Formats: sequence, C-alpha cells, structure tokens
Amino acid sequence: MSERAIGIFDSGVGGLTVFKEVLRQLPGEEYLYLGDTGRVPYGTKSPRTVLRYALEAAAFLHARQVKALVVACNTASAVALEAIEEHYRVPVIGVIEPGARKAVGVTRNRRIGVIGTEGTVKSGAYTRAIHRLDPGVEVIAAACPLFVPLAEEGWADHAVARLAAAEYLAPLQQAGIDTLVLGCTHYPLLKQTLRALLGEAVILVDSAEETARCLTLLLDEGSLRRISAPRPPRFYVTDVPTRFERVGGAFLGADLTGVEQIELDGGGDVIVPLKSAGANRSELI
Amino acid sequence: MSERAIGIFDSGVGGLTVFKEVLRQLPGEEYLYLGDTGRVPYGTKSPRTVLRYALEAAAFLHARQVKALVVACNTASAVALEAIEEHYRVPVIGVIEPGARKAVGVTRNRRIGVIGTEGTVKSGAYTRAIHRLDPGVEVIAAACPLFVPLAEEGWADHAVARLAAAEYLAPLQQAGIDTLVLGCTHYPLLKQTLRALLGEAVILVDSAEETARCLTLLLDEGSLRRISAPRPPRFYVTDVPTRFERVGGAFLGADLTGVEQIELDGGGDVIVPLKSAGANRSELI
Repeated sequence: MSERAIGIFDSGVGGLTVFKEVLRQLPGEEYLYLGDTGRVPYGTKSPRTVLRYALEAAAFLHARQVKALVVACNTASAVALEAIEEHYRVPVIGVIEPGARKAVGVTRNRRIGVIGTEGTVKSGAYTRAIHRLDPGVEVIAAACPLFVPLAEEGWADHAVARLAAAEYLAPLQQAGIDTLVLGCTHYPLLKQTLRALLGEAVILVDSAEETARCLTLLLDEGSLRRISAPRPPRFYVTDVPTRFERVGGAFLGADLTGVEQIELDGGGDVIVPLKSAGANRSELI
Repeated sequence: MSERAIGIFDSGVGGLTVFKEVLRQLPGEEYLYLGDTGRVPYGTKSPRTVLRYALEAAAFLHARQVKALVVACNTASAVALEAIEEHYRVPVIGVIEPGARKAVGVTRNRRIGVIGTEGTVKSGAYTRAIHRLDPGVEVIAAACPLFVPLAEEGWADHAVARLAAAEYLAPLQQAGIDTLVLGCTHYPLLKQTLRALLGEAVILVDSAEETARCLTLLLDEGSLRRISAPRPPRFYVTDVPTRFERVGGAFLGADLTGVEQIELDGGGDVIVPLKSAGANRSELI
C-alpha cells in the first residue's frame, strides 16, 4: 500500500477524458493532474520540444512524490515515454500501448485505423505498438489536426465536424478498417460524429478505459493502493486557470475548481536527454 | 539613417503575412523575424501569459539592437503593446491601430465587423481603437478559433472553411457590416472564402499593408532608413524549424531557409510587469 498520490499530465484539458475513467475505476486514490495549458498543443510541435515539455511536467509531478505517472497525452506518450521511464523510478503508463492492445484484441479483419495529432501519427508509435502485438495487422493512420480545435470549440457534433471527419476518414473507410483507435485524448468527444460516419460495424477504441485498467493492475502488482480515505484531486496548469476550468468541465463531466497556476519553464533544473531513445527515434516533423 | 535591423515577431508563421508586405514596401532594410513556434498559438491563451511571452520575444530582438519593433500578431498587439512600449526605447508598431484606422477610413455605413482569435476579440482592443477614431461606428466582433488551424492545414479554400465561415460570420452579415477587419495574421489566407461568402460589397481590411505603411512613416520621421545594401532577413523560432519552413513558405510566398532555433523561456532575465496597463486592462479569458 502507498498513500502517495498518482500524477497525471497532458498538454491541457484533453487528458481529463483519461482522468475521468481513471477516477471511475480507482476512486479511492489521490490525484495530481497537470495540464501544460501555457504551451498547448503538443500535437503540432516537434518531438524534441514535446520531449522537453513532457520531462518538465514529469519532473514537477515527481517532485511531489507521486507513486505512479500517467502520461495522458498521446503525443507525449509517443515521443517521451521511454525517456520518462529512464529518468524516474516510479511506474509510468502511457496511452499508446493500452490503446494498441485493445485494438488488436477486438479487430476481426485485422485492419485497424488510427487517428491522432500530426505528432502522434508521424511518430508511428501506434503502428509499432500494434505490430509488436501482431505483425500481420494492417494499420492505416491519419492525422486529424482540426479535431482538437473542433472539440475545444464545442463543435464536436457540428456540421463542420461531420464534414472534416468525412474528409479525414475517407482513406480509412476505403481501406475497410473494422476498428478505429481514437489516438488523441480529445477525440472521445467526437464519438457521436465518428459513429454516425462509420456506422456500428466499426469499433471505436478509446484508450482511457484500457489505460485505467493498466494503472489498476500496476497498483495491485506493486501493492500500491491507497488505504486511507481518498483526497480530492488537485489540478495544476501553466496558464491562468479560467479557460481550463471552463473547457475542462465538459471533458471531465464535472465542475473543476481550485485549479492552481504553476510554472514549468525557466526552472533550468530539467536535463533534457536529447540523445535518448524517445528523441532519436525519429526527428519527425 | 540607421543600419540596424528591424525586429518583427509573432507567435508563429502568421506574422509572415505582415512581414511579406513590410518587405514589399521596405525592401532595403535588414530584418530579424521571430516566431514563438514552441508556444504557439497565443490566441487561446490568457492575456497574462501572452504578455509574458511577448515581452520575452521583444527582449530577444531588443538585445540584437533592432531600431524598431513590429508586433506582427494581433493577440500580442492587443494585450502587450503598451507594456513593450514602456519597456523599450525603440519605436514599437502593432497591427491593431493600423487595421482600425484603415477600417474607419473605408466604411460607408459605419458598421465594421472584426474577426480574430478568442484573445483578440475578448480584449476589445479593436473596438477601443475604432472608437478612439470614431465613437459613432458600430463594431461587431466575432472570434473564429477554427480559422488558424484551417489556414495551417492548407484548408483555407476547403468546404470545411466555407461552412465554418458561414457560421462565424452570420451575426456580422445580419448586422449589415460593409467592412470586415481580418484581425488575425492568418486570416488573409482565407480571403477567397470570405470574399465568396460576403460578396464584393464588403471591404476586407488586412492590417499588413497599413502596418507596413506606418513602419515606413516611422522610419522616415526618425530618419532611420538603411542606406547600405540590404541584408537577407534572419528567422528565429522556438521549436525545431522544419514545420515553420514548410507552413511558413505558403504564408510568405517564398522559400524559407536558414531558420535558427533559439530559446525564449528559461532565461529568467525578463521582468514581467504584471501590473502594467496591458495586463490589467482585463483579465479576459
């Protein structure tokens, strides 16, 4: 058992869709959630820059003695997970591996679609994770850069979203996918639009549920569950909290209050291992 | 006369539409262009954070002995112009005042529409600038958060852009505007879509031309024109340059090469005057 908190971070509000599911499966824990709203989004930035930001976020949470770290951001998971694991002794969970595992488990025709940010898709992280589990699966990936602003605009079910989705997903439909990985934490908000476009035959895979299950297993394996009464979650952001509270409420499905603004940059105490596996894997963008 | 360079900054590639016009009107100068691509966009961030970023950008250029500063970003002009002017002795030009002056000059029915980022619109900077020139003008402003990602996606003339534009501009059309200020440096790329929607009767005001004219006047008034042969412009960014070079080329209408990556954060030598006029004007978002 461990009374320490669990740290979760994302570039902004998107990770709250993961946190919501974590909270549902593990309501007895204490959580520190960090959204790097001062530098959001990560999805259009280079792997090197995302790596630096992700390490700064991990350093902030690690300094608060978390017992586990959840990288609730696909782009950061794609380019920084290994580097974070190398840096810190606590268990680290990303969202790519759980999503890939679930997709491989449910596909019948072994044609899996993956949608995500430019950074996530260019990293090839999902394709690699899926092929590690089953090299025979065909993976068709598409970047959908407008989905994040559409979700944040509250236009997830708008005609503009339907038109953009039809455009982005046409090659995946033509390829005959039967499973679609929502490879960005904002995308679960577009489920209705995607469902209407793709029909019931295509299974939508949201990493949140599987990531929360992984976290549960990990706490159980390490006997790290909290015994005392749960504490309310604490939220940290790097821009003023007003927008995070407003937009984030829709993502979490609950009111966000008491959000605290902190600084990640300028500390100068984070060593960015530019030669780590995460950075060198591909100089993508 | 002054042989020193002119500094121009923006959150990313958008300011290149301004720089393009400056270069056309003042081809004999040397330019340093800085795009804060590691923290782009500014339009969805709080005034306080944008103020801090803008001061860091100005400090970087000022340290390179520029003879004038152009804030080629509407959001930064809206919330940080006064603070930059207070901080530095060199002349500083933003894009809001020139755009407002041009709009007031061309409107016939004195109903002016303004479109921009969330930050620019919430700041009310255009409305104030227009009312300083003519208090009787009716200003109808609308935030168009999807226009920046649409322009960066290369979808400025796409059906998705047309649908989004129709939605955003409906209230402005209903109000009977005869002039529309493109209050974001990305928006000139959507001119064709906006023209098709609004018809020839509505005048589209792009701040770039007027901003370049202001800069010309300012150099002439101060006898600051360069006499020697012009030097090639230098470009600085805060993320790796690849994406800036690729997307920025379309904005500048020319190839971008030799772009250098620098760091703005972490220096710790920028004093952010949180109590300055720019920050206190309104805690907007």
